[in-house]
Amino acid sequence: MLIKESDSMVQKRTNEEIYKQAVNILPGGVSRNTVYRKPNPNYVASASGCYVKDIDGIERIDFANNMAALIHGHAYPPIVDAVTKQLQKGTAYTLATEIEVEYAQLLCDRIESFEKIRFTNSGTEAVMAMIKASRAFTGRSKIAKAEGAYHGTYDFAEVSQFAEPEDWGDINKPNSVPLAKGTPQGVLNDVIIFPYNDIERTLAILDEQKDQIACVLIDPIPHRVGLLRGTSEFIEALYKWTRKNRALLVFDEVVTFRTNFGGTQADFKVKPDLTALGKIIGGGFPVGAFGGRADVMKVLDPTTFPLLFPHSGTFSANPITMTAGKVAMEYFDEIAVLKINAMTLNAISQIEESIKLADVPVSITGAGSMFRIHFRETPPTTYREAYQNKGTKQLINEILDYLFFKENIMMINTCACMFSTAITQKEVDRLSAAFLNVFRLVKLKIDKLNP
Amino acid sequence: MLIKESDSMVQKRTNEEIYKQAVNILPGGVSRNTVYRKPNPNYVASASGCYVKDIDGIERIDFANNMAALIHGHAYPPIVDAVTKQLQKGTAYTLATEIEVEYAQLLCDRIESFEKIRFTNSGTEAVMAMIKASRAFTGRSKIAKAEGAYHGTYDFAEVSQFAEPEDWGDINKPNSVPLAKGTPQGVLNDVIIFPYNDIERTLAILDEQKDQIACVLIDPIPHRVGLLRGTSEFIEALYKWTRKNRALLVFDEVVTFRTNFGGTQADFKVKPDLTALGKIIGGGFPVGAFGGRADVMKVLDPTTFPLLFPHSGTFSANPITMTAGKVAMEYFDEIAVLKINAMTLNAISQIEESIKLADVPVSITGAGSMFRIHFRETPPTTYREAYQNKGTKQLINEILDYLFFKENIMMINTCACMFSTAITQKEVDRLSAAFLNVFRLVKLKIDKLNP
Repeated sequence: MLIKESDSMVQKRTNEEIYKQAVNILPGGVSRNTVYRKPNPNYVASASGCYVKDIDGIERIDFANNMAALIHGHAYPPIVDAVTKQLQKGTAYTLATEIEVEYAQLLCDRIESFEKIRFTNSGTEAVMAMIKASRAFTGRSKIAKAEGAYHGTYDFAEVSQFAEPEDWGDINKPNSVPLAKGTPQGVLNDVIIFPYNDIERTLAILDEQKDQIACVLIDPIPHRVGLLRGTSEFIEALYKWTRKNRALLVFDEVVTFRTNFGGTQADFKVKPDLTALGKIIGGGFPVGAFGGRADVMKVLDPTTFPLLFPHSGTFSANPITMTAGKVAMEYFDEIAVLKINAMTLNAISQIEESIKLADVPVSITGAGSMFRIHFRETPPTTYREAYQNKGTKQLINEILDYLFFKENIMMINTCACMFSTAITQKEVDRLSAAFLNVFRLVKLKIDKLNP
Repeated sequence: MLIKESDSMVQKRTNEEIYKQAVNILPGGVSRNTVYRKPNPNYVASASGCYVKDIDGIERIDFANNMAALIHGHAYPPIVDAVTKQLQKGTAYTLATEIEVEYAQLLCDRIESFEKIRFTNSGTEAVMAMIKASRAFTGRSKIAKAEGAYHGTYDFAEVSQFAEPEDWGDINKPNSVPLAKGTPQGVLNDVIIFPYNDIERTLAILDEQKDQIACVLIDPIPHRVGLLRGTSEFIEALYKWTRKNRALLVFDEVVTFRTNFGGTQADFKVKPDLTALGKIIGGGFPVGAFGGRADVMKVLDPTTFPLLFPHSGTFSANPITMTAGKVAMEYFDEIAVLKINAMTLNAISQIEESIKLADVPVSITGAGSMFRIHFRETPPTTYREAYQNKGTKQLINEILDYLFFKENIMMINTCACMFSTAITQKEVDRLSAAFLNVFRLVKLKIDKLNP
């Protein structure tokens, strides 16, 4: 048996050397597009709390937290301990486990709209299954979603995720724009696009195909739309419309669940019929879940005949993810939510101070433990306003590179921060100081974008 | 902070008690349909090697291995050690890791057709992305797949996965049968169904829409079709057809990769353009991957413009899965493959002996480290022959229940075994003896199915 030494410390290579090998075997040299960076990706040696150390030994503050997936930062001791124990007992079986029931109970207790829940392996799988459950329950095939909203990689869910001025069409009836080449026309025909937070236009668009819509899919604070909060009026109008037209209102809280103890949905008077979760509920391990009304979730019940929506998953609800997720959520209790949100508010107000001091036309949107920085005087109110043209994108890359290489700060590539409970005032101070530096450095370029 | 005790040993409950809670919060009380069992699922306490112990303390031999996902059985020490180490360094970052490059290299070295690879979180995601890559490369939207073949839960991939006599239609042109209620007609229109291993009919069906087919999707030993090997002639005919018609030949080796060091594809003269992997390559953790021709995989390359197929995944190529998977594959070397396949052949010939001794009309199909038992005199050669009617299904459930409760043996619910390297002659002897017992017990019922 030929065993290669797994510990990468033995034959220490540079980031450039690893990437040189990577481009030969991975498309573009990366396994996730988000980790790509010019001239090459940066490779992690280890991480702890809110710090990530790369293989050159450089330590950076992590405000990205694996695309918002790590609520307690890295190698959180209670999670490490619990998972280390479970590892000894196995990672997956063809039988059930008690921990999946306990964790399901925790989430159903925590989220008001959850009567029943099913786990999946990713947010993509959760949204896909939620859409399929909506179709199975209503017997209809179309879905409606917001222009610009990201909902994972199921092709129905990704229509118009990246609509551009050349193809997005009339705001009164936005085009269904494919993300990937070769997307079937049938997929585009079955996805109705509306402008987020625009009640009048959205209802008019929905009305046109009211008998065919299985569900209206909503991220209550869609990141790519601008990390804008859905207004209560908008959410309530969609709720009413779906009641009237026998469609389902389904939420994608894969990212937003972190904003409140019971998810962002706790902020609204009306509740979604189904909700998809992911990211932080896995405690750092691959996860997805969706839940909601018992009568809708019944389409998944294998004890019924005919079974309307057969759904499987080799690794779904595996005891490692369940263990890590349950511990993560137990420690992310009401007080922890309040604390992380307060720390994030601190950061926002300190960066607003940096904006003032540097006198740059910059604004901030966000909610809970997340915010996004926009290079315009006033916060955008629509996807089309939040849309980053080529010049803006270049500037953002320049800023993110500066923060990464000069200030040792990691952020999300839209210029957004997703906090972990590991972040303290010390890191917030470094963040706002770094922003003051970079704002001053690129002030002329920001001004140029805002003539 | 209110921390509930995570260790389920503290408040020990029975299987019935846990299930009583589960039915209130999980549809049908389960998070995966495969773990459902009457009167209630069985809950695992711990597992090691080829033994799984339930919460009542009963230990069973595991011939299911989490639906074929565990090649070394449970809690394999080299995997436990490597993952325990990695846990201390974190489980996922917004940056790259060296281990993803090393593991990608291992798989590309091992599988002849793999020039480039991309990781995902499940077999479902791998097949979905492989189909999307095929569409992006060819600019066509249709796919062709075999009647009865299972390819995960992407709706395009699951058409006709469970076709039945009432709806499967003429064998010369099988219907596209939806699995879930509400499946869009557009999906059915874009999926062409052919009868596995039937060259003449398949080519005639493909020819009808030859300009519109992005890929022909093939599991080289499809489990639900009967765990029948694709014939060389069939695979070569599809290869030729796809060359002639500028379509791609794509393999689903999520299950079958285990049969040979380089996957089942190593048994054929022709190689697929793309292949999806999953199951055993995760070392017990959620995983998927697909790889193949560099020019096709280039559609995923984020350094190209326009990017034809943008693809993301929060947990894709996470260092825990990469670490566990790499160790699992290093120990599943050429010799280990030969050994596990030989042990499986032993089991098959011992069960054939049991069949003879009990004088029952039973046959066995399979390859490598997997086999499936059919309750008919001769092995099925098509999906329609392998199809289990209600009576057969009931009998199989009875047999599996007997094996589970009386003989303490776990199998896959189609009456199949997927071996792990942890299984020894001792367990094989228990398996064949158990089959002799159950064959004698239900001989009359088996005879009745075969009048």
